[in-house]
This record gives sequence, structure tokens and C-alpha cells, in this order.
Amino acid sequence: MQQRSEETRGRILQAAQQLFASSGYDATGVAELCHTAGVSKGAFYHHFPSKQAVFLALLENWLAALDGQMAPLIEGPGSVPEGLVRAASITGMVFQSASGQLPMFLEFWREASHDPLVWQTTVGPFRRYQELFAGIVEKGIAEGSLRPVDPFVASRTIVALALGFILQGVIDPQGAPWDRVTRESFQMLMKGIAL
Amino acid sequence: MQQRSEETRGRILQAAQQLFASSGYDATGVAELCHTAGVSKGAFYHHFPSKQAVFLALLENWLAALDGQMAPLIEGPGSVPEGLVRAASITGMVFQSASGQLPMFLEFWREASHDPLVWQTTVGPFRRYQELFAGIVEKGIAEGSLRPVDPFVASRTIVALALGFILQGVIDPQGAPWDRVTRESFQMLMKGIAL
Repeated sequence: MQQRSEETRGRILQAAQQLFASSGYDATGVAELCHTAGVSKGAFYHHFPSKQAVFLALLENWLAALDGQMAPLIEGPGSVPEGLVRAASITGMVFQSASGQLPMFLEFWREASHDPLVWQTTVGPFRRYQELFAGIVEKGIAEGSLRPVDPFVASRTIVALALGFILQGVIDPQGAPWDRVTRESFQMLMKGIAL
Repeated sequence: MQQRSEETRGRILQAAQQLFASSGYDATGVAELCHTAGVSKGAFYHHFPSKQAVFLALLENWLAALDGQMAPLIEGPGSVPEGLVRAASITGMVFQSASGQLPMFLEFWREASHDPLVWQTTVGPFRRYQELFAGIVEKGIAEGSLRPVDPFVASRTIVALALGFILQGVIDPQGAPWDRVTRESFQMLMKGIAL
């Protein structure tokens, strides 16, 4: 029974990702979610109290996957600048995943600017990433691999570059080999802040 | 009569910006637009064939304002790197404008990823900016003020930084003095690509 329940939850999340990405979060109703997932309304509300709860679960899964992929990239061998260029390849996770995931990225941001609960779930990890990168920059300055730049500005710059490339990839997927361009862009930034 | 007609059009656009930013584009209907603008449905359809047409007009106005502010910043005195750091202050236009304009930025991008007409209106100017900056980088290399970097990557990096800071400002307006951080971030990038 436990296994079947997990499968049902997974089917709801999968249907939600597909429908939110194609039609948008606002335009998708619970009835449509149930129909696409092939579950009853009773089963739906057994797993999620609301459509918003499904959305938050998708966002949390996405952030957990991001964390899981980021840590080994940053903590690998070599200097801080080398680790940061490696971490840039995390944007590849977004580019390479099913194209349906890219519009979801905009749905998350847009809902965060409208909905206080989604905002809290988004802005917490977001500030955590800014602090994570600020600490890494401080470590690079201490080890002598980075110039004595302002860690606050440098960390926001790293986050801005990653977000900006994801946004360009969302809007114009065929416009460039975004994976390669993002890596080379981080190398460009490094030549600025690396000794 | 001409003047009154212009006023009506302006009121519709103002109401649309307010409602799209607060409730979202999808959730806003023509009836609500007319009510907020204080115009009849007849007057509305005299000016715009559809809600989408209002959205496209807002997007075109926004892009025209961006063009108008960008040109003198880039073309001012000094070297190419100096012009690029000045141009970074264009993001201030987005930060400083009424807070209602920030969520509109996400509405534009989100609709562009769903709606082919909005996409065309968005991606055209977007690619134009990428080409504009690629040309400026080439000029800087030629005049000896920039290292011989790849203009394709450098121009996408400039656009990514601007987009990434706008997105951070949208989601977390109180999180940093974004205007100053953006300028210092561009200076950081310049130290990387400037000779």
C-alpha cells in the first residue's frame, strides 16, 4: 500500500510539472491535474491539501536536486576559482533537463512575486546560496586564489550570472550553446576576480 | 477628440500594468481592465483588438524606454569598459520604477515562453541587445581597451548579469542595494575582460 501511495504522489507531481509548464500554474485546475495523473479527487486531497501544496513540493524537489548536484562540484579538488567554474555547470542541469522544466523555472519566480508562501520557500534557499558563495569567495581570498574583492558583491554576481543564463536559455533555447557559453562566462568572471 | 482618445488608451495601459502586475496576466480579464480604467468595452475594443494586444503594447513601450535610456549611456565619453559600466545603471531604471513594474518583468518573460506572438516581440529586441553588446566588445578589442575575449560569450555575459540582477531585485527587493551592487558587479567583470 505504501508503495502504491508513493506512486500516486509521483504521478500527481509529474502531471503538475507537465501542466504548469505548458498551461501555467494559474490556468491549471485540480480537476485537470487529477485527470492527467489518472487519480481521483479523493486520492489527490489525500496527498496534497491544495494545488499550491503541489507547487511547493515541486519547488522543494527542484531545490533539493540543485543542492545535491552543487555540493560535489564546489567541494571537488583544486582552488576556489576552479571550484566556481565547475559549479557553473550546474546550470546545465536546468538546460539539459526536459524542455518542460525550463518554463517551470519562470512559474516558480512569478508565483514567488505574488504568493507569500511561495516567496518564503524561494527566497530562503536563494539567500542561502548567496551566503554560500560569499563564504567561498572569502575562502578564496584567504587562500590567496582570489583578489580581495567584496564577497557580498562577488556572491551576488555569481548568482546573477547563473540566473541570467538560465533565463536566456528559457527564452531562446536555440540561441546559443548555453552550457558552453555559461562555463566560458564564469571563466571570464574568474579572470576578473582571480589573482 | 484625438487627445481624448489618447487619454483613453493611456488609461487602459495604466490599468493593465497595475492589474497584470498584481493579479497576473492570465487572471486578468477584459471586463476587469475596463472597470479599473473606467472605460466601456466598446472604447476598449476601439483601441485594442484583444488583451494580448494590450500586453504587447506595454512590452513595446517598455522596450522603447529601455532603448531610449541605453543609447546615451553607451555612447558617452571614455573607453568601451567605461561605457559598459555606465550602461549597467540601466538596471536602475527597472529597480527605481514603481514596484509594480518589477513583477511585470516576470510576466513578460513567462508569457514569452508560452505565447508565440509575445515570444517574437521579446526575442527580437533581446537578440538585438546581444548583437549590440557583441559589437561594442569588438570595438573595445579594436581600440585596445578590452582583452581579445570572445565577443559572443562576452555579450551574453553582459546580458546575463543585467537579467540576473533584475531577477534578484524582483524576488528580494530588500535583500541588497541592487543598484550599487549591479554597478560594482560590472566593474568586477570589466577587470576580467579589460586590459
